[in-house]
Amino acid sequence: MKKAIYPGSFDPVTEGHMDVIRRACGFFDKLYVAVMVNVDKHTLFTCEERVDMLRKVTAEFGNVEVVHHDGLLADFAESLGVETIVKGIRNMSDFDIEYQMALINSRLNRKLDTIFFPSKSEYLFLSSTAVRSVAGTGGDITGFVPEAIKQTVLDKIAGIRIREER
Amino acid sequence: MKKAIYPGSFDPVTEGHMDVIRRACGFFDKLYVAVMVNVDKHTLFTCEERVDMLRKVTAEFGNVEVVHHDGLLADFAESLGVETIVKGIRNMSDFDIEYQMALINSRLNRKLDTIFFPSKSEYLFLSSTAVRSVAGTGGDITGFVPEAIKQTVLDKIAGIRIREER
Amino acid sequence: MKKAIYPGSFDPVTEGHMDVIRRACGFFDKLYVAVMVNVDKHTLFTCEERVDMLRKVTAEFGNVEVVHHDGLLADFAESLGVETIVKGIRNMSDFDIEYQMALINSRLNRKLDTIFFPSKSEYLFLSSTAVRSVAGTGGDITGFVPEAIKQTVLDKIAGIRIREER
Amino acid sequence: MKKAIYPGSFDPVTEGHMDVIRRACGFFDKLYVAVMVNVDKHTLFTCEERVDMLRKVTAEFGNVEVVHHDGLLADFAESLGVETIVKGIRNMSDFDIEYQMALINSRLNRKLDTIFFPSKSEYLFLSSTAVRSVAGTGGDITGFVPEAIKQTVLDKIAGIRIREER
Amino acid sequence: MKKAIYPGSFDPVTEGHMDVIRRACGFFDKLYVAVMVNVDKHTLFTCEERVDMLRKVTAEFGNVEVVHHDGLLADFAESLGVETIVKGIRNMSDFDIEYQMALINSRLNRKLDTIFFPSKSEYLFLSSTAVRSVAGTGGDITGFVPEAIKQTVLDKIAGIRIREER
Amino acid sequence: MKKAIYPGSFDPVTEGHMDVIRRACGFFDKLYVAVMVNVDKHTLFTCEERVDMLRKVTAEFGNVEVVHHDGLLADFAESLGVETIVKGIRNMSDFDIEYQMALINSRLNRKLDTIFFPSKSEYLFLSSTAVRSVAGTGGDITGFVPEAIKQTVLDKIAGIRIREER
Repeated sequence: MKKAIYPGSFDPVTEGHMDVIRRACGFFDKLYVAVMVNVDKHTLFTCEERVDMLRKVTAEFGNVEVVHHDGLLADFAESLGVETIVKGIRNMSDFDIEYQMALINSRLNRKLDTIFFPSKSEYLFLSSTAVRSVAGTGGDITGFVPEAIKQTVLDKIAGIRIREER
Repeated sequence: MKKAIYPGSFDPVTEGHMDVIRRACGFFDKLYVAVMVNVDKHTLFTCEERVDMLRKVTAEFGNVEVVHHDGLLADFAESLGVETIVKGIRNMSDFDIEYQMALINSRLNRKLDTIFFPSKSEYLFLSSTAVRSVAGTGGDITGFVPEAIKQTVLDKIAGIRIREER
Repeated sequence: MKKAIYPGSFDPVTEGHMDVIRRACGFFDKLYVAVMVNVDKHTLFTCEERVDMLRKVTAEFGNVEVVHHDGLLADFAESLGVETIVKGIRNMSDFDIEYQMALINSRLNRKLDTIFFPSKSEYLFLSSTAVRSVAGTGGDITGFVPEAIKQTVLDKIAGIRIREER
Repeated sequence: MKKAIYPGSFDPVTEGHMDVIRRACGFFDKLYVAVMVNVDKHTLFTCEERVDMLRKVTAEFGNVEVVHHDGLLADFAESLGVETIVKGIRNMSDFDIEYQMALINSRLNRKLDTIFFPSKSEYLFLSSTAVRSVAGTGGDITGFVPEAIKQTVLDKIAGIRIREER
Repeated sequence: MKKAIYPGSFDPVTEGHMDVIRRACGFFDKLYVAVMVNVDKHTLFTCEERVDMLRKVTAEFGNVEVVHHDGLLADFAESLGVETIVKGIRNMSDFDIEYQMALINSRLNRKLDTIFFPSKSEYLFLSSTAVRSVAGTGGDITGFVPEAIKQTVLDKIAGIRIREER
Repeated sequence: MKKAIYPGSFDPVTEGHMDVIRRACGFFDKLYVAVMVNVDKHTLFTCEERVDMLRKVTAEFGNVEVVHHDGLLADFAESLGVETIVKGIRNMSDFDIEYQMALINSRLNRKLDTIFFPSKSEYLFLSSTAVRSVAGTGGDITGFVPEAIKQTVLDKIAGIRIREER
C-alpha cells in the first residue's frame, strides 16, 4: 500500500490545496493531509478549526485522512508508514523553500522522498495569506476556498474585527 | 482620462519609489500614490506621517495625488475610477510577490491591469527596509530618500532610540 | 502624443503577444509593433511574413502600426520619436533577459524607458517556440495564435515538412 | 493500472536520470521512459543508441519500458494510456522550462498531469550536457553515467574526435 | 595584510557556516567572524552565547577572530581595516538578499567589496532556522552543527521548552 | 603563493570582465585569465585574438597572466597549481549556470573551490553577447569594452559585414 503525506498550515485550506489533494490522491492508496502545528507561528485558525475545515472538504475522497502533528515531519511520516511527501509549487520562492525542506526531510529520514505538484495556472495567485488578506479587507473569496468552508472563514474574520474594534 | 494607482507602504518613501513615480506620472493623466494601511503590519511611520512625506516630495508633480486606504486595493481602485496598478520591480523576489498580487487584483476586479517598472540599476539596492536599517544603525541615508524628508526620517529614528534607552 | 514600441521576433505572433498589444495600446496614443530582424537568428517565417501576419491581426486597433528594423532598437526608437519600450514577462527567465535588455537600451539612449506587462495566467505557457513545436509535431494550435493566421502557420509548417521529406 | 511517462533527450542517460527513474517507478505500475526525437535538435547519440543505452540500464526494473517518439508528447501519452508525466528538477531554470511544458501539455491534453522530482543534492551538478562536455575534454565521467554505459559513451566521443582530427 | 569579515546572526553557527569559514580563511590573512546584533530581530541565543559558540568552533583556525557589533556593518568593517565581506549562497533567495546587501554596503563604503561562496551541495539544506526547527521538534541535529556545540544547542532548546510548559 | 583562475570565452573581454579581474587580482598573488576554447561553440574572435585583447588590457596588472586551454578546466587548474576559480555573477541565470559548473569542477577535482564576484550594478547589463549585438547593429560600445580594444572590436565587426554583403 502506497501512502503519502501532504503537510501544511492550511490556515485556511484553499482551492490551490484542494487541487494538490485531488491530484495526489489519485497516485496513492492513502493520502494523509497533515496540519503541522508550529508553536512559533501565529495562525488565524486554531489547529482544531483547520482540521475540521479539511475534514469537511476532503470527506468526498475515500483515501484521504486528515491528521495533525506538532513535532518533526520526518518522524511523523515514519510513524504513519509514509515514504512520500507531496507539496504544491507555484513559483521560484516556493521552489526555494520546498526544495530545502525536501533535502532536510530526506536527510532526517533517508527513506523519505518528496514530489512536487506544479500549480495549475488558475491557482497561481492563491495562498492562505491571500485568502486571509482579501477576506480581512472585505473582498470576495468565492473560488479562493472550497464553498463548504467559505462562511466559516468569513465568520472567523468578522469575529476578529469585532473584537479588535471593541 | 487615464488614471493609475501606485500602492505601497512607503515606510518611508525612497528614491526608488520616486523614480517609479517620475516615470509613471509621464504615462498617465493622473497618478494616485496610495499608502496602503495593513493593520497586521507594524510600520515605523504612522499613516499620516507617510502621507505627509509623500505629499511633500510629490508636490512638484501636477498630476500626482497622495491617498491612503485600509481596505482592498481592487475596490479602492474601482472607487477612484482607476484601471491600472503600477509597481517597481528590482529582482526575482519582487517579481514573485508582485506577479502574485497582479493575478489576485485582476481576479478581484477583471478590469484592473498591472504594469511593472524595472528598477534603474542605481536603485537596485534600495528599499524602505534598507533605509530604516541604515538610519537605525547611524548610517548616512543621503541619496536613499528625497532630501526634503531626510531630516524627518532621522528625527523619527532618533526619537525611537531615545525612548528605547529609557 | 505618447508613443511606445513593442519589439520582438513574432515568429509567429501568439495570443500572448496579442494580449500585450491589447493592453499596451490602451496606454499609448500610438503603439509600434516592431519585427526586429536579427541576421544571426534563424526564423521560421521571413520578415515579410511576420509583418503580414501582424498587420492582419492588429488591423482592428486604430493606433497600432507594424514596422520592422534590422538595426539597433535604441536608434530605431529615437527615429520614431518613441521613449517607451513595452515587453511581456511570463517568468524568471523572461525577467532576467528583458531586465538586461532594458538596462542596455536605457544605456544606449538615456530617454528610453521600458515597462513590463506581466503575462495573464492563461498565456503563461505560450511562446512562439511552443507554437512552432506543437504545430511542427501535428498538435492543435487553436488558441495559441489568432484565428486569422492559424492556417498560415499550419501551411508554412506543412510546406517545410514536405521539403524535408523529399 | 497507473502509468507514467518520463520524456527526455537522454543524450546520454545520466545518474541523475536514473535517480528519477528509480524514484518514479516506485509510484507507478508502469513507467515509460521516452526518448523524444526533435528533428531540429542535434544530438550526440542517435535515437537507437539512446534507446539501447536506456534499455541496458533499466533492464533491472520490471515495470520500466523504453520507448521513443518523434511527435507530440501529449498525443503519445494518450496513445499509451498515460496520464502522468514525470520530470526531474535541479534548479530555477529547470523549473521555468518544465513548468511551461507542464502547462502546454495539460492544455493539449486536459487529462495529462505533470509531477516534479526535485534532484537529490548529489546529482545537482549533473546533466547530459555536462557528461558530453567532460567526456569530450578527456575528463572522468565515473559516477556521471551508469557504469554499464560508460564505455559506450567514451567510445562514441573518441570516434568523433578521430573523425574531427582527420 | 588582507582582511575579510564574515557577518551573520549565527543563531546558532551551522556546519554550512563552518564550511564558509574554512574556505574563506584560506584566502585571507585575517578573517573576522562577526555576530551582527539587530535589536529588531529576536534570536534564540544571546549575543554572548553566539560569540562563545563561534569561539569554541573556530579556535583551531589561527587567523579567525570572533567579534560582535550592533551598528552598521560598513562602518564596523572600516574600523577593522577590512575591505572584503564574505557570504555563503545556497539558492536564489540567498542571492537576491545578499546581492542587495552587497550593493548597499559598497554604496555606504566605496572600498567595501563582497564575494560569495556557493554552498557545497551537502550543506544546501542547512540553515540556522533549520537547526532551531529540527532541534525544537526533537530531531537529530548531528551533522547540522559542529559537534562541540551540539549539546549547548540541545540544552538551550530543552530549557525553553521547560519554561514554555510551566 | 595563492593562485586563482578566471575562465571564460572573453569574446570579447568587456568592462564587466575587467571589473572581476581588478577585484580578483587584489585577493591573489597570481590570477590566470583563461580563454577556454570550446570546439562546439562558434566565437566571433579567434582564440589568438581573444588572448591578444586580454593581454593588452591586463598588461597593467603585474600578477595577471593570460592563458588559453581547449581541455578540461579542472585538469588545467591542477596543472597550473591553482585551487580557486573566480566567476562574475549578474543575475539568477548566471547563478544557475555557474553554480552547476562550480559543483562539477569540485566533483572533478576535490581541491578546486569557486568564488563568485557579484556584478557591480553599473555592469549588470553588460555581456560579450551585448557587445557583439550592439556593435553589430552600429551602436556605440564606448564603456562596454576597454578603450584599448574598442577599435579592434569595431574593425572585426566591420570586416564581417563587408564579407557578408559581398
